[in-house]
Amino acid sequence: MGGDQAPRMVLKGADKSLKRYPGAAFLLFGVEDKIKPLLAKMPRLMRCSSIRHTDEVVTNEAKPSVALRTARRSSMRLAIDAVAEGEADCVVSAGNTGALMAMAKIALKMLPGIDRPAIASFFPTRRGESVMLDLGANVECDADNLVQFALMGDAFARTVLGLVQPTVGLLNVGSEEVKGNDAVRGAAAKLRNETSPVKFHGFIEGNDIAAGTVDVVVTDGFTGNIALKTAEGTARLFSEFMRAAFRHSLLARIGYLFAADALKKMRERMDPRRYNGAMLLGLNGIVVKSHGGADALGFANAIGVAVDMKINGFLDQMREEVARLHAMQSPPQAPQSAAL
Amino acid sequence: MGGDQAPRMVLKGADKSLKRYPGAAFLLFGVEDKIKPLLAKMPRLMRCSSIRHTDEVVTNEAKPSVALRTARRSSMRLAIDAVAEGEADCVVSAGNTGALMAMAKIALKMLPGIDRPAIASFFPTRRGESVMLDLGANVECDADNLVQFALMGDAFARTVLGLVQPTVGLLNVGSEEVKGNDAVRGAAAKLRNETSPVKFHGFIEGNDIAAGTVDVVVTDGFTGNIALKTAEGTARLFSEFMRAAFRHSLLARIGYLFAADALKKMRERMDPRRYNGAMLLGLNGIVVKSHGGADALGFANAIGVAVDMKINGFLDQMREEVARLHAMQSPPQAPQSAAL
Repeated sequence: MGGDQAPRMVLKGADKSLKRYPGAAFLLFGVEDKIKPLLAKMPRLMRCSSIRHTDEVVTNEAKPSVALRTARRSSMRLAIDAVAEGEADCVVSAGNTGALMAMAKIALKMLPGIDRPAIASFFPTRRGESVMLDLGANVECDADNLVQFALMGDAFARTVLGLVQPTVGLLNVGSEEVKGNDAVRGAAAKLRNETSPVKFHGFIEGNDIAAGTVDVVVTDGFTGNIALKTAEGTARLFSEFMRAAFRHSLLARIGYLFAADALKKMRERMDPRRYNGAMLLGLNGIVVKSHGGADALGFANAIGVAVDMKINGFLDQMREEVARLHAMQSPPQAPQSAAL
Repeated sequence: MGGDQAPRMVLKGADKSLKRYPGAAFLLFGVEDKIKPLLAKMPRLMRCSSIRHTDEVVTNEAKPSVALRTARRSSMRLAIDAVAEGEADCVVSAGNTGALMAMAKIALKMLPGIDRPAIASFFPTRRGESVMLDLGANVECDADNLVQFALMGDAFARTVLGLVQPTVGLLNVGSEEVKGNDAVRGAAAKLRNETSPVKFHGFIEGNDIAAGTVDVVVTDGFTGNIALKTAEGTARLFSEFMRAAFRHSLLARIGYLFAADALKKMRERMDPRRYNGAMLLGLNGIVVKSHGGADALGFANAIGVAVDMKINGFLDQMREEVARLHAMQSPPQAPQSAAL
């Protein structure tokens, strides 16, 4: 029931995702009277879906703390509960992000060894796709949080992006070791440790995000949220300037006609719908948040991310890396008879 | 002597700036043997310049603390001293930013009522130009620092951008009052005060930077540096994708020929040289830092910013606003006979 055009957009997205994942099956949580007539027009989706009726819906304006206490029979909460109870493999929602995060933390719990969840997302770079986290779940982070985010991003890049040895960079105001605040310097010291489970590139700067200098960009939720939205805003401004340029003169309009096909390919490369689906990582379950304004194609991509996390064993990879991190933090005691 | 192509680029930039400011005069600090032959070829610049010879140069690799102690006869330090002693109205350098900041703080001192300097810069937006600070001078900031940055940005927008009532926004992860960390919430509470000397818009998000939602974007140096470089990186990626699109096919190449003129105008609008010149604000003197990789056009723009700050009375405006801020923070005592 979440998102600007729900439930139509959600159903169309699920239907679209069946092309890529013909074996997928859906539990649809929400108002049956609204879902049923739409589903009737999508026979392929209907065959692999079942509706779980509830009248209760978490609104976009609801405070997470209030939603958590009062909306226990909401479509969002019931969908998360289905994952907690093992009935579903993952949950995808285009609803209220704060409520989704709060409910998922309570119902799914954190992965052992992870203190806080983080929001992660893909973005386009010169070299392909990278992943960045945290994008806003944690306004303040300490060194341990950042190290855990590095692990989460690494596990994600290995399983979903299929990288054998992803590189991890810490976002900072310079690449020298002395730069930055206590949190980034402390996290870097831990990640530089040779027994660290991730391949640490070192500090990176804002321009390295789009350059694709690393596969995983790690930062606190304050900086990450602002960096992501700054990049989105800049891309939008650039598109507007480009549109204005092509409207500028008759010659430019003619030029556009010739170049239209190539420019369409470029737009596709930057299309935000391709990168829809923010992952709530660190939870003991797979939760993906679609943008509320997503269309069916965007929502299908968010579903795709969740399915990929499941099929490629993201949670197992996470558990393995956390175990290695703990082994690194508490090395085996030296035998008592060791020479001094 | 600072910058990748100094001193040639610096001299050419100064010469260029004379077109816009025919009344300007220059003190050129550096190695006379290098400067003199170049200057001989620029008769217009030579007429209004004098060379102050020194062999000592601050390198780009020098640590600010070391430069401060040891480089007292460097071209950078002597140029700053000329401002401190009233011999020059402003200093422009393409050299080591950290050294420039450290030396300027010692030699010029802070403006009374300002605790820390901030780095500010223009950037292009949908609505024209805005100014953002701090871009990296202060990795950690408290609420008072941010309030002072708001004043500095406001004074700058009034004097150099010529705005009568600039709007000021605080960069945050959401627009609601409860969002963000203690520093931004504390600063917002002070700026919302009705006696505040600036017109406070409220919190803004990363995408508001390029949208031009406000005239002055205020943030800490960690976030500001990363936001600025993220925007630069995104713009560069977009340009590369566009170039690749036009090379994509013969049709696209033909299209480019037709649209070349309009696209050139667009590039000019986004040209980073137009926005060269970072202002070191909060000091008791005018200091502008050019990008080290700037060419003559970029350096001329940095000189232009410094001259504009001088002609338009930036320092006087700053002093006035600080006085109003202090009046707001310590309101006149109520008469002792007031009824309780």
